[in-house]
Amino acid sequence: MVNDNAVKPVGVAVLGLGNVGSEVVRIIEASAPDLAARIGAPLELRGVGVRRVADDRGVPLGLLTDDVDALVSRDDVDVVVELMGPVEPARKAILAALERGKSVVTANKALMAVSTGELAQAAEAAHADLYFEAAVAGAIPVIRPLTQSLAGDTVLRVAGIVNGTTNYILSAMAETGADYGSALADASALGYAEADPTADVEGFDAAAKAAILASIAFHTRVTADDVYREGITKVSSADFDSAKALGCTIKLLAICERIINDEGQQRVSARVYPALVPLEHPLASVNGAFNAVVVEAEAAGRLMFYGQGAGGAPTASAVMGDLVMAARNRVQGGRGPRESKYAELPIAPIGFIPTRYYVSMNVADRPGVLSSVAAEFGKREVSIAEVRQEGMVDDEGLRCGARIVVVTHRATDAALSETVEALADLDVVSSINSVLRLEGTNE
Amino acid sequence: MVNDNAVKPVGVAVLGLGNVGSEVVRIIEASAPDLAARIGAPLELRGVGVRRVADDRGVPLGLLTDDVDALVSRDDVDVVVELMGPVEPARKAILAALERGKSVVTANKALMAVSTGELAQAAEAAHADLYFEAAVAGAIPVIRPLTQSLAGDTVLRVAGIVNGTTNYILSAMAETGADYGSALADASALGYAEADPTADVEGFDAAAKAAILASIAFHTRVTADDVYREGITKVSSADFDSAKALGCTIKLLAICERIINDEGQQRVSARVYPALVPLEHPLASVNGAFNAVVVEAEAAGRLMFYGQGAGGAPTASAVMGDLVMAARNRVQGGRGPRESKYAELPIAPIGFIPTRYYVSMNVADRPGVLSSVAAEFGKREVSIAEVRQEGMVDDEGLRCGARIVVVTHRATDAALSETVEALADLDVVSSINSVLRLEGTNE
Repeated sequence: MVNDNAVKPVGVAVLGLGNVGSEVVRIIEASAPDLAARIGAPLELRGVGVRRVADDRGVPLGLLTDDVDALVSRDDVDVVVELMGPVEPARKAILAALERGKSVVTANKALMAVSTGELAQAAEAAHADLYFEAAVAGAIPVIRPLTQSLAGDTVLRVAGIVNGTTNYILSAMAETGADYGSALADASALGYAEADPTADVEGFDAAAKAAILASIAFHTRVTADDVYREGITKVSSADFDSAKALGCTIKLLAICERIINDEGQQRVSARVYPALVPLEHPLASVNGAFNAVVVEAEAAGRLMFYGQGAGGAPTASAVMGDLVMAARNRVQGGRGPRESKYAELPIAPIGFIPTRYYVSMNVADRPGVLSSVAAEFGKREVSIAEVRQEGMVDDEGLRCGARIVVVTHRATDAALSETVEALADLDVVSSINSVLRLEGTNE
Repeated sequence: MVNDNAVKPVGVAVLGLGNVGSEVVRIIEASAPDLAARIGAPLELRGVGVRRVADDRGVPLGLLTDDVDALVSRDDVDVVVELMGPVEPARKAILAALERGKSVVTANKALMAVSTGELAQAAEAAHADLYFEAAVAGAIPVIRPLTQSLAGDTVLRVAGIVNGTTNYILSAMAETGADYGSALADASALGYAEADPTADVEGFDAAAKAAILASIAFHTRVTADDVYREGITKVSSADFDSAKALGCTIKLLAICERIINDEGQQRVSARVYPALVPLEHPLASVNGAFNAVVVEAEAAGRLMFYGQGAGGAPTASAVMGDLVMAARNRVQGGRGPRESKYAELPIAPIGFIPTRYYVSMNVADRPGVLSSVAAEFGKREVSIAEVRQEGMVDDEGLRCGARIVVVTHRATDAALSETVEALADLDVVSSINSVLRLEGTNE
C-alpha cells in the first residue's frame, strides 16, 4: 500500500470544463484512493482553467481560474490535462506547460493533427510526456496498442470508423431509407450533431484522426493537410439502395495505408471518404455513435478495436488512463513513448492510390448505351467487376431513362477520374449521380 | 536517426524455438533497422535456448545452446524472452534471469497464472520489467489496455473467448450440427487441437488466462486455482439445437467480474464455462480460431478487442511489442507497469454468483409433468423466464417421452444446483441432459 504521508503528491491542472473536463474532475475526486494506489502517490487537483469562473460549474470556486497561463505555470502542477479545444488557445497552453517541464495529456485531435512536430519537440526538450489517447476514438485504446503493442510489428493498414456523428447519420440512412438532410436534422435534434456540423460531415474531424493514426502507425509525421478528404454530404438514399443491392452498406472510413511499389519503395496514404463496405466486413456492423478501428499488421494479422468513440465519460476514461501513466512516470521515473518519425515515408498522392469504385449514372434507355459506357472504362484500363442496369419511371409512371451502376476492380483515382469525366461528356449519359469507393473486399 | 555506433546494443536471449520462438527470431533479424530506430539502440540476439542443438533448426548453430542457465546469466543479455512453456523449466529460467537483473518477456499463461506473485516480486526486487501481453489472446492487445489505458477507470467485467481450440470446436458444432467427438477429431486432424487436448477442452488454458485478466483488471492477485472451471466436453449437438431455438449459440467464456453486494463490499469472480450467448451479442459472431475480449468499465462503457488469439506469427507480434518496450526502457530509462495488487479483493465462490441458466431434461410425456418441474424451481426461488417442451420419438417413430428446456432469470449457482438435484430425483424426470449458463443478456 502507498503511504500517502510519505510521498509527494502529483499536482494536476485541468484546462476546460465541458463534458469531458467535468467527468475527469469527477473521477479524480471520486476515485482518489484507487488512483493514489495505482500511481504510487495521491493525485491532487490544483485548479481548473475555464473561460467563465462561476459558482454553478460543479467545481469549488477556489479551484476555478480564467488565468490559464498562471495555472499551467504553478510550481505545484506536474501534469496538465488539456480539454479546451480548439487549436488555439490549446496550443499555446500546452506549449507553455511543456516549456515549464509539465507533462501533458490532451484529447485535442485537431491540434495534434496540425502541430504534432512542434508539440513533440517541446515535450522532448523538456523531457516531459505528451499523451493523447483520447484524441482518437474516445475510450477505445488505439494509440497505445499502435505505439506499444505493435511496436515490434509492421503495420500495413489502419481503417476505422472514427467519427460518431457521421456514423450515426449514415446508420440512420441505412436503416430508415432517410435522405441525408433529414438524417442530419434528426442527429442534430438528438444532440449527435453540432449546430455547425461541418467538421464532422465534411470529414475534417476524421481526417485529423487519420493523420494521427498514420503518424504513429508508420513512424512518419503526417498532418491533416496530408490527408485526402471527402465528406458525406453527397451520399444519397439512392446510393444506399444500390449499396444494399450489392450486399454493402456505406461508412465514412479513415484509412491509413502503407503503399509499397514494385521496387519496394514505401509511401503512406491517409484518406477519408464515404465508401461501400461489404455487409460481412467487421466495420459494416458498427452502427450509431460507436467507433471501431481495424489494424492489419504483418505478424499480428487483423485486429479490431470497438467501443464508444465520443461522449464525456468514455473520453474521460482515455484521458484518465493517460493521466495515471503520466503521473506514474513522475513518481517512479521514466517516460512514455515519444514521437517516432524515423521512417520519414513520403505521402502518396490520392491519384496513385488504387481502390475499387462504384459509379452510378443516369442514361438514355436505348440500345448500345451500356456498350458506350463500358467502352470508356475499358479505354482507361479500368476493369469492370459488376454492372447493374434498371429502368426508371417518372412521376406518371412513364419510362424516363435508365440507371447504370458500375462496380470496378482496383483502379487508380487518376484513371477513374478521367473515366468519369469522359462519361459525363457522353450524350447518352444524362448525369453522374455518384462516385464512391468500395473498400473491404479481398479483390 | 539512431547512430548505431554510438549506443550500446540491447542483448536478447530467446528461450524456446517452437512456432513462436522461430518467428520472434525471424523478426529480430528481418526488422533489425526498424527495431533499432524504435528502441534507440540495436537489438542483438545473443543466443537461443533449446533442448536439442542441431543444424536444422533454422538458426545459426553458434547461437543455439541447451544450457539455458548459462545463457540467461550472460552479462551481455539484457532481456530474456521465455517461450519454452510449460510451468517448469520456464519458472526457474525466468527467476534466474530476473535475479540477475534482466528484464523478461513471456507468453507463458500457465506460469503467469500460478506464479504471478513470485515472479512479480523477483522483478520488483531486481528493478526489472516483466511483460506478458502474449500470455492472453495472442496478438490482441489486452494486458496493455487493461493495465494502462484503463488505469484511471474502474473495470466492472471482462468476458472473453480466449481459447482458439475450443472456439474452433464449438463453431464447427454450431455450423455443421456435428457432435463434440467428431468436431474434436476434425480439429485434431487440422492441427487446431493438440494430441492431448485436455488443457484446452477442460478449460485449464482459459482458466489461466481468466486468472491473469482478473488480476490486472481488479488489482488483486488471482491464480488459476481461484478460477471456477467447466470444460466443453459435455456440450451436445442437442444443446446447440436448443440454443438455436432460443436465438443463441454456445461459447466457452472466461469471465472476470467485480461483484458488489448491497453493503458495497467488493469481491472478484473469475470463472470459465460454456454458456449460451445471444446471437446479437458481439462475442456470438467470433468464430473459428479467433479470440475476442469484451471489457466493461465504469467510464469507458463496453469495449471489444478482436483478433487472432494463437499461432506463431500473431503471438510473436505481441512478444515483439513487449520486447521493444523492455528494450526501450533499458535504453531510455524507466520501467513498464508493475504488478498492481493493492485492492486485495476476496474471491467470490461460484455458489454466490448469480447467472441465468439453461436446463435441458428428458421427462415422461404425461399431464402434470411441467407443473412438477416448475414447482422445483419455484421452491428455491429460481424464477423461470422461458420454457420449451417438445415430444420425442424413438427410432421406430413412437412417442417416447418429452424434452423440457427451462431458461431461468438470474439465480445463484447454489440455488440452481439444489434445484437440479431435486429435479433429478423426480420420478417424472428420466434424465438431466445438460445445465448451461446463459450470459450476455441484459436481464
